[in-house]
Amino acid sequence: MPLPRQVFVAVVGAGGVGKCFLTQLASVAQSLSQSPSAPTYLSLIYLSTSKKALLHADYKSQQLSSWEAELKSSTTAPLPPQQLADYLDVADSYPLFLNKGISIVTPNKKAFSGSYKLWEDIFNAASNGSGANGLGAGGYVFHESSVGAGLPVIVTLKDLIRTGDEIRKIEGVFSGTMSFLFNSFQPTTGGGGKFSAEVKKAKDLGYTEPDPRDDLNGLDVARKLTILARIAGLKVESPTSFPVQSLIPKELESASSGDEFLSRLPEFDDQMDQLKADAEKEDKVVRFVGSIDVQKQDVKVGLEKFDKSHPIAALKGSDNIIAFYTKRYGDNPLIIQGAGAGGDVTAMGVTGDLLRVLRLIR
Amino acid sequence: MPLPRQVFVAVVGAGGVGKCFLTQLASVAQSLSQSPSAPTYLSLIYLSTSKKALLHADYKSQQLSSWEAELKSSTTAPLPPQQLADYLDVADSYPLFLNKGISIVTPNKKAFSGSYKLWEDIFNAASNGSGANGLGAGGYVFHESSVGAGLPVIVTLKDLIRTGDEIRKIEGVFSGTMSFLFNSFQPTTGGGGKFSAEVKKAKDLGYTEPDPRDDLNGLDVARKLTILARIAGLKVESPTSFPVQSLIPKELESASSGDEFLSRLPEFDDQMDQLKADAEKEDKVVRFVGSIDVQKQDVKVGLEKFDKSHPIAALKGSDNIIAFYTKRYGDNPLIIQGAGAGGDVTAMGVTGDLLRVLRLIR
Repeated sequence: MPLPRQVFVAVVGAGGVGKCFLTQLASVAQSLSQSPSAPTYLSLIYLSTSKKALLHADYKSQQLSSWEAELKSSTTAPLPPQQLADYLDVADSYPLFLNKGISIVTPNKKAFSGSYKLWEDIFNAASNGSGANGLGAGGYVFHESSVGAGLPVIVTLKDLIRTGDEIRKIEGVFSGTMSFLFNSFQPTTGGGGKFSAEVKKAKDLGYTEPDPRDDLNGLDVARKLTILARIAGLKVESPTSFPVQSLIPKELESASSGDEFLSRLPEFDDQMDQLKADAEKEDKVVRFVGSIDVQKQDVKVGLEKFDKSHPIAALKGSDNIIAFYTKRYGDNPLIIQGAGAGGDVTAMGVTGDLLRVLRLIR
Repeated sequence: MPLPRQVFVAVVGAGGVGKCFLTQLASVAQSLSQSPSAPTYLSLIYLSTSKKALLHADYKSQQLSSWEAELKSSTTAPLPPQQLADYLDVADSYPLFLNKGISIVTPNKKAFSGSYKLWEDIFNAASNGSGANGLGAGGYVFHESSVGAGLPVIVTLKDLIRTGDEIRKIEGVFSGTMSFLFNSFQPTTGGGGKFSAEVKKAKDLGYTEPDPRDDLNGLDVARKLTILARIAGLKVESPTSFPVQSLIPKELESASSGDEFLSRLPEFDDQMDQLKADAEKEDKVVRFVGSIDVQKQDVKVGLEKFDKSHPIAALKGSDNIIAFYTKRYGDNPLIIQGAGAGGDVTAMGVTGDLLRVLRLIR
């Protein structure tokens, strides 16, 4: 009978996703500690926001649920402050962590869509980075929820590649905000409001960043495309090294605030209505999509027209859809669809990755 | 630096899926043997059809590609003949294999939809069978392609459960044959042929079993539902312990052959046309679906009507679609869609599982 084991977990960041992850972690830790054959005890030894930190040498799994109150009353600063305050510093030190045998699970998009050099450093250091069987020297790295939140996007793409399929094209709606905006702006059943009104509605519902331009510039989608393209074997240098269509009118790029932007956006509704009318003439709808043509090494993000019967056109609410066109699947792609944002489903991707690491390091 | 390692692989069955799997295995073995950091050598030590076998103590990965010619000229009978000739015997001995530390990857539906006792014995014996972290004593068992072929159905369902989501309903089209039949019989765009003519066409295209009744009886779908329901926690005794609608008219159940069945099937076209017309009146289409209501513990397989805008109605060709309704995903389910049959995509599920085992046993 195997011995019980102890796994130490450090959580850097306790925002929307981090909170949901900690809840899921508490429940997973509970069930792992009760495994009759070989209990695993998860110890949260480090938890930090940008301002505060908890350090516990013996923080047992069953107490995970009280972290929020404890963190609130903590007077400890994050340690080392420099690294933890600066988001990018954390990503930059992934190779260092991995080389020391520390595994990383994260929804961090920026880390994997930053410089290609960082990407290479991370996967050269990781045990699951090089070769079909993933035999490296260091810790494991998983980042499922960096694309599509809890949807099994990265695991599926990697399985296709590892088993020898040939990826031809990846296409989809990768932003919950963009999905909601265009499903409301031009529903397949007709109707829909003015574009500026839909942006305002999305903001009021909490579907956009505080400044909606952070969604409308297309960069979030470009980051996800960068990650998938790199997994598919393309050496994409950065999220700005391929065409990305911004939906921010040039004239409003310099607006001093999100509110000013929103108040002036109606001036440009005619342009958007024109796009909608042009699509309607062909019995199509406009959607904001990302696509990767692997053979042509062509990555792009922007507006495209789709037949109303196309799965991308028929999307509902703020769902994401990702279609993998491969040699084996032929003309009818393998499709994954569902909510691609939100704390709980994003945290699910992280928790799933953590369980993968636990299986691998035992 | 880790040592090179040797993994022994036995392949029982070299039919449609087995052939594709061996091709994928050869390519995977090639790349694993060339891993610069830690090469893995896969040795195929046993390969058998129901009639012939190959036994190699030193069958190196790079020679995997010659198995077909070698098997053809083999004069060795499968060993032990009794077990290997009888499909079910193999499934019955899974717990035995697992207890000895031998891992199993298989597309075998019957093994996992047989008696509930066998299911329990398999997962009690497997290292990835019990508890959230899957810590048992024996080998690992994976059977991704027993539902949806290469589509990531089982891995996704297990990830949802393991991370603490609550499965409410699973619904979908689980048979490529049934998908093709109804997408042709009643396309969302109108039209479609007589049901008997569509069955004949599907048979001519190789989409049905030699006797189409083996598809039309719904049992293949019932087996897949049994597997998913069990993973979701329902103690389903067998694929016949819940309502399964057969599309074989009572009068033709006893037809002496598939050909006789096909020749008499047109007598029942009026009944099917009536169903189609009834659906059309509600602006719906008829589809053959399976569903699992986890809360009500209700599993069923049969014809249902769907709005034309429903993802199940909009399916193309012979694609499968599986929708997971969960607490986290709410009203818009997590959907997986694509080809759910065919040698190459089914073998992909098996190859992917093999790579999982290789990562776990290193």
